[in-house]
Amino acid sequence: MRILFLGDIVGRPGRDAVAKHLPDLRRELKTDAVIANGENAAAGFGITEKICNELYAVGVDIITGGNHSWDQREALAFIQDQPKLLRPHNYPQGTPGRGVANYEIGRGRKLLVINVMGRLFMDPLDDPFASVEAVLSSVRLGATTNAILLDFHAEATSEKMAMGHFVDGKVSLCVGTHTHVPTADTMILPGGTAYQTDAGMCGDYDSVIGMDKGVPVQRFRRKLPTDRLSVASGEGTLCGLFVETDDSSGHAISAQPIRRGGKLQATPPLD
Amino acid sequence: MRILFLGDIVGRPGRDAVAKHLPDLRRELKTDAVIANGENAAAGFGITEKICNELYAVGVDIITGGNHSWDQREALAFIQDQPKLLRPHNYPQGTPGRGVANYEIGRGRKLLVINVMGRLFMDPLDDPFASVEAVLSSVRLGATTNAILLDFHAEATSEKMAMGHFVDGKVSLCVGTHTHVPTADTMILPGGTAYQTDAGMCGDYDSVIGMDKGVPVQRFRRKLPTDRLSVASGEGTLCGLFVETDDSSGHAISAQPIRRGGKLQATPPLD
Amino acid sequence: MRILFLGDIVGRPGRDAVAKHLPDLRRELKTDAVIANGENAAAGFGITEKICNELYAVGVDIITGGNHSWDQREALAFIQDQPKLLRPHNYPQGTPGRGVANYEIGRGRKLLVINVMGRLFMDPLDDPFASVEAVLSSVRLGATTNAILLDFHAEATSEKMAMGHFVDGKVSLCVGTHTHVPTADTMILPGGTAYQTDAGMCGDYDSVIGMDKGVPVQRFRRKLPTDRLSVASGEGTLCGLFVETDDSSGHAISAQPIRRGGKLQATPPLD
Amino acid sequence: MRILFLGDIVGRPGRDAVAKHLPDLRRELKTDAVIANGENAAAGFGITEKICNELYAVGVDIITGGNHSWDQREALAFIQDQPKLLRPHNYPQGTPGRGVANYEIGRGRKLLVINVMGRLFMDPLDDPFASVEAVLSSVRLGATTNAILLDFHAEATSEKMAMGHFVDGKVSLCVGTHTHVPTADTMILPGGTAYQTDAGMCGDYDSVIGMDKGVPVQRFRRKLPTDRLSVASGEGTLCGLFVETDDSSGHAISAQPIRRGGKLQATPPLD
Ligand SMILES: [Fe+2]
Ligand SMILES: [Fe+2]
Ligand SMILES: [Fe+2]
Ligand SMILES: [Fe+2]
Ligand SMILES: [Fe+2]
Ligand SMILES: [Fe+2]
Ligand SMILES: [Fe+2]
Ligand SMILES: [Fe+2]
Repeated sequence: MRILFLGDIVGRPGRDAVAKHLPDLRRELKTDAVIANGENAAAGFGITEKICNELYAVGVDIITGGNHSWDQREALAFIQDQPKLLRPHNYPQGTPGRGVANYEIGRGRKLLVINVMGRLFMDPLDDPFASVEAVLSSVRLGATTNAILLDFHAEATSEKMAMGHFVDGKVSLCVGTHTHVPTADTMILPGGTAYQTDAGMCGDYDSVIGMDKGVPVQRFRRKLPTDRLSVASGEGTLCGLFVETDDSSGHAISAQPIRRGGKLQATPPLD
Repeated sequence: MRILFLGDIVGRPGRDAVAKHLPDLRRELKTDAVIANGENAAAGFGITEKICNELYAVGVDIITGGNHSWDQREALAFIQDQPKLLRPHNYPQGTPGRGVANYEIGRGRKLLVINVMGRLFMDPLDDPFASVEAVLSSVRLGATTNAILLDFHAEATSEKMAMGHFVDGKVSLCVGTHTHVPTADTMILPGGTAYQTDAGMCGDYDSVIGMDKGVPVQRFRRKLPTDRLSVASGEGTLCGLFVETDDSSGHAISAQPIRRGGKLQATPPLD
Repeated sequence: MRILFLGDIVGRPGRDAVAKHLPDLRRELKTDAVIANGENAAAGFGITEKICNELYAVGVDIITGGNHSWDQREALAFIQDQPKLLRPHNYPQGTPGRGVANYEIGRGRKLLVINVMGRLFMDPLDDPFASVEAVLSSVRLGATTNAILLDFHAEATSEKMAMGHFVDGKVSLCVGTHTHVPTADTMILPGGTAYQTDAGMCGDYDSVIGMDKGVPVQRFRRKLPTDRLSVASGEGTLCGLFVETDDSSGHAISAQPIRRGGKLQATPPLD
Repeated sequence: MRILFLGDIVGRPGRDAVAKHLPDLRRELKTDAVIANGENAAAGFGITEKICNELYAVGVDIITGGNHSWDQREALAFIQDQPKLLRPHNYPQGTPGRGVANYEIGRGRKLLVINVMGRLFMDPLDDPFASVEAVLSSVRLGATTNAILLDFHAEATSEKMAMGHFVDGKVSLCVGTHTHVPTADTMILPGGTAYQTDAGMCGDYDSVIGMDKGVPVQRFRRKLPTDRLSVASGEGTLCGLFVETDDSSGHAISAQPIRRGGKLQATPPLD
């Protein structure tokens, strides 16, 4: 299976970068499925139903979330009718929406997408390790599903690498989101799971994590109230990674970072 | 000036990777100066005088530190006699050692190295922004010194990007350390400062931030006391970035990530 | 039912204060049950089986714990045979020991003791609110049990007051531990639950939370490694609160702070 | 000198409790000076100039602040003209207002009031220990000033107790604020400094730290956006402590907690 994952889409520059580059990438990479983290798609904070539809229209199949999933309050309602929009699975019981999606690819193939959130330096949700373990206990990679993607939305590199090893061999791809900076550690772990600590944001990198840089710099230097954060307005970079998996084992065959447009150096075309 | 910076050296695999690849890299890149973060060089925790000398012997010119600088208590004493070993400048007044070093390159050229530590999700030292500002107030890039390198040892991408913009145009290179994962956002900021959120560790990447993965995974899953952390024992990757600067302006001309050996994909040779 | 609760017993001064004052207090207050938090009983860090027995011998009936429960590794083993020694109930599934105890008082009366840990500014265990809710779902105050005591081991006053209101009417007494300082807000909440944000430690108050003050002051001022923390050696104060409950409703009739010995002002004798 | 300190005044119930009880207390205690923390006086968030004047009118002489000092943006401007309104002294250089006030009592006596903020579990300001040390380096208790009061606005009991010992003998009174719960550890430290870990709020205690309890409980249980916090509306308790100092040494002679009205048990009248 040919899977493209895109990191946190931040505001208009992020959405524009996806709209501009994703259609070409789908053809170039012959993707079977495109998953993107959308927690910052709406002006940096949350996501609206309109933006979900906009993202589906340009080629995103499944949208994941994170700590910003609910910044747009309407998401608490419309997520109920959006089986392709996930939020972290380890929110408390009773939270609207779901953290796991089954996606049917052509020719009877299936992809399971899981979204969980870390706890180190973050608001404590339920244990992400136990949460993932519970999901995995009822599926078997290469048997009940052909591939499994885990979007681990977390801050600390230690928690993310620990999760990678925890699921090594049991999922096809464990990819981090949330820090808004791509890491250069794309690899296949010993058990066959593709791993990258963070996919990086789709957004303007001449910024502070996608936001106009004036206000954040001021917040760090002075400890006084500031204006609101607003999304930076330069050209965005599409950031993510592409993984090819073996449909019978579910393990990764190859994993490559993908970057297009904006301030970051583009990755070379895959052949 | 041709500057190579190497991220946190973690234990023996990190030291071995530096010893194996640095001599070749010095020739290949015709480096004028090599700076490396050594806070985890001694079995993952701190640094000894013996290891400092070992690193100098294989081609490191200046060693920076971080929150682990003092894990080997002897560092509190020997750092006084080690002008080339830095610790974060924003430790409280009275802390042994120094956070700034002037390094004389051939032909009368000078490089200033600054080491400060972030505060977001870390033990609060003095304000790193004010600390850097104070250092920069008495130097002028391209006049009193030909190049300035800032090692910002910090956790959060937001604080690191904010620092990058804060010093943009005033230092030659602002590079992050501490997360032990290289970021793929090497760029030259609008004001002429080369920037990368994290240089990545020199260490074994089949690990949890350089440490054998069994114990950290257990710590996240169960919340019970575990065995001590020990350094992973596989082949390490040398990780860092190479920046060429203009000696008269002090601004960056080019910036390239460097990776050699171990589990991460090597960067292509520079021509 | 007449219940005496004692806060975190810290080292020898704490144990001595309990040994000295508890026998008299049991008589004076005609207690039916004495519960004490023992997470710091062994030199400030954890608890041993020997100390458990020492505490039972001077009149403690049930011992609760917290984040320091496992500092003495032997507790991981002996807690299995100690039905009267609790650890926070919201440790991950599979943790040794238990977080709930049924205690049989004379004349067929029953007291349920629950121990959970907060998450704000602490290592994230499972959700304490959900954990308490699960326990309470299978009991009914005044029917299946005559009284329920909840030791909420937590840092933040906001989380503790929120827990108080969350269980108001459903437990007899919700008392906080962990900060090692008694609060002066003993009250009966509108639904009938006695509440005090923190019981305060049994320990030497001429200290920093029970530890000799030199090292902690140094840690705050300088950010360097220090000697180990050691328990302060002055006379300890027994600190806790006494609650009388109605056996048929399980609600609190009265609640009074109790302090004896050491540096804090003693509370007046109850009549 | 006879000094009354009142903890964080939270919204209308807090202001009403002060207005109702302070005039009587001034007479009863024959106070020379009344200091109150006002960071939550305006609907729980910050303070306005109008409320400052209201507090002066009912007998408050000096108002201190904390992390909420700037919640009402107008404070950034009017604090410049308010020598009797303090904010933590360890805000970065360039912050409006001041953290130290000299207050002239009758008959040529002087009281110095210092306000600093802690860093443990809080936004990191400059080092509070160094900040206090700097202020104290230019005054001498019992010589340049007759009394010194330190309002240490901090979360953790350990940091507060450490500060108490750090200034023991050098200030007349070290009192904590911020947790909104009074502690029952009023004491005179060995060096002569009166100490209480937290003064407690002036506000409605049938609440979560002064705020209506519905929303906070919901925030802890579910991790979803909620309505805004609003101040609880029941009768407030005036909370604080009263300290008598020796005018020539500056040391404390006696220290007593003071509570009047609302849900907490009143302290007995002093004779
Ligand atoms: Fe994000
Ligand atoms: Fe996020
Ligand atoms: Fe490190
Ligand atoms: Fe570090
Ligand atoms: Fe404790
Ligand atoms: Fe504790
Ligand atoms: Fe407050
Ligand atoms: Fe506060």
